[in-house]
Amino acid sequence: MITSTANHRIRTIRSLTRRKERDTLGLAYVEGIRPVIEAIESGADLETVVIASDLLTSDRAYSVLSDLQQRTQSPSYQHLNIEYLEVSARVFRSISNRDGPQGIAAVVRQRWEQLEDVHLRDEDCWVALVEIADPGNLGSILRSCDATGVDGVIVLGTSADPYDRTALRASSGTTFTRRLVRSNWDSFTAWARSEGVAITGASGDAIQSYRGANYSSKSVLLMGSERKGLSQEQREACTHLVSIPMLGKTDSLNLAVATTLILYEQLHQREVGTGVPEKST
Amino acid sequence: MITSTANHRIRTIRSLTRRKERDTLGLAYVEGIRPVIEAIESGADLETVVIASDLLTSDRAYSVLSDLQQRTQSPSYQHLNIEYLEVSARVFRSISNRDGPQGIAAVVRQRWEQLEDVHLRDEDCWVALVEIADPGNLGSILRSCDATGVDGVIVLGTSADPYDRTALRASSGTTFTRRLVRSNWDSFTAWARSEGVAITGASGDAIQSYRGANYSSKSVLLMGSERKGLSQEQREACTHLVSIPMLGKTDSLNLAVATTLILYEQLHQREVGTGVPEKST
Repeated sequence: MITSTANHRIRTIRSLTRRKERDTLGLAYVEGIRPVIEAIESGADLETVVIASDLLTSDRAYSVLSDLQQRTQSPSYQHLNIEYLEVSARVFRSISNRDGPQGIAAVVRQRWEQLEDVHLRDEDCWVALVEIADPGNLGSILRSCDATGVDGVIVLGTSADPYDRTALRASSGTTFTRRLVRSNWDSFTAWARSEGVAITGASGDAIQSYRGANYSSKSVLLMGSERKGLSQEQREACTHLVSIPMLGKTDSLNLAVATTLILYEQLHQREVGTGVPEKST
Repeated sequence: MITSTANHRIRTIRSLTRRKERDTLGLAYVEGIRPVIEAIESGADLETVVIASDLLTSDRAYSVLSDLQQRTQSPSYQHLNIEYLEVSARVFRSISNRDGPQGIAAVVRQRWEQLEDVHLRDEDCWVALVEIADPGNLGSILRSCDATGVDGVIVLGTSADPYDRTALRASSGTTFTRRLVRSNWDSFTAWARSEGVAITGASGDAIQSYRGANYSSKSVLLMGSERKGLSQEQREACTHLVSIPMLGKTDSLNLAVATTLILYEQLHQREVGTGVPEKST
């Protein structure tokens, strides 16, 4: 049992609150009964499970832990080689990022793919996000991607980290079910051209409503940042642009909200087979 | 010019970061060029404008301020009796809630209505939120209400505060354009019965998809809390229930996302005049 907060492993885990360390080590930190379970059920690549028995007070926590140990010792998990780290309550509190720590946490390996390894099939739709700033939005978008059958997300430029604590929490474990790519604008447009991928951009000044548009298969939905939306250059790179009608004072919606409205329209069209007529005739 | 951070007015403004003080005083604090402008353009009820000339460095800030002073001195604003408070940079920093303070802030009067004063007309749709916990979600929902022509929001039970700093930021000023009511479950259901208001509840186990449903006019969309959704009792109080289909691992979406999906479906049906056929025939 680790009882020193200065222990090397504990210091490393604690450092994962900082993006720089997460990027360098390719790891992320997940804490709490529910988030750890979500990560496991979503097929996350667990490196370490941290347990403080003194804090694991509820019966539920114990049954969760024993279930977890059984699962991760089954043949389909053994290749992961998960390490269990027993720590004192004091040590656990030193790495905890929440009030009332439940005594269970996990270190998870980040998974990133190269853009050139992404090949969309005819029915596929992905999401690309330009300089998304808010990790909560990024997590919510991953959750919506999971719900609408969007396989993956491409974050472009200086973006929030999907392995950030807030992003992970907002994603409800779906960060681990989606494919993730980091890239930049030029590589992205070159990839879209060479792969024959259509780019649907969301832009307030587009004439076409998101609901009247017919979405191409094999496409990427491109969303601009919270503050700036898509630039002129980015809009020009799109195969087509769609807007979301707004009746009131505001000229934009929350980014995760806007992204999801379009994803659900795409899902609906995939299922129903056509665009929705704007007026019944 | 106020140069002491211990000044009574400054202490009061600083206290508005705490919900208890906001509730007691019926005030809220808005900071930054853009948020202050948004508040004014949305018809917020300004009590005080706080200015630190030393921090108002950009030309834009000056033109915004002079525009603001002109506007608020026009006859349509004079009844508000807005007070201008000139403070030192140090005093401004002591009340500021952001990095790089821009030297302009406002104290705004909260506006709440009584539920018994709310009478829906035939075309009206409102939103009711049961114990919403996240102020960012509440702000995003207000923004979506503004965008979809939803007049007001009823927060039920122990809920996040729409005048919280995070909620105000997420709402992009639309908190000031929507009608707001605080109530509890029993009063809400009694009100709905006596007013003949239909309650549409969102629930993962509803058979009817949100997109296939026909929404009553004169209705309230009822959304449960982030963690728990609607309870059995709350679902039973609904006129009808709708669900949002989800293909993946997750069994729920972000609350603001889910609310907005249904609001945009309602808007679409109001505009097109009918429910959307699930299959084209």
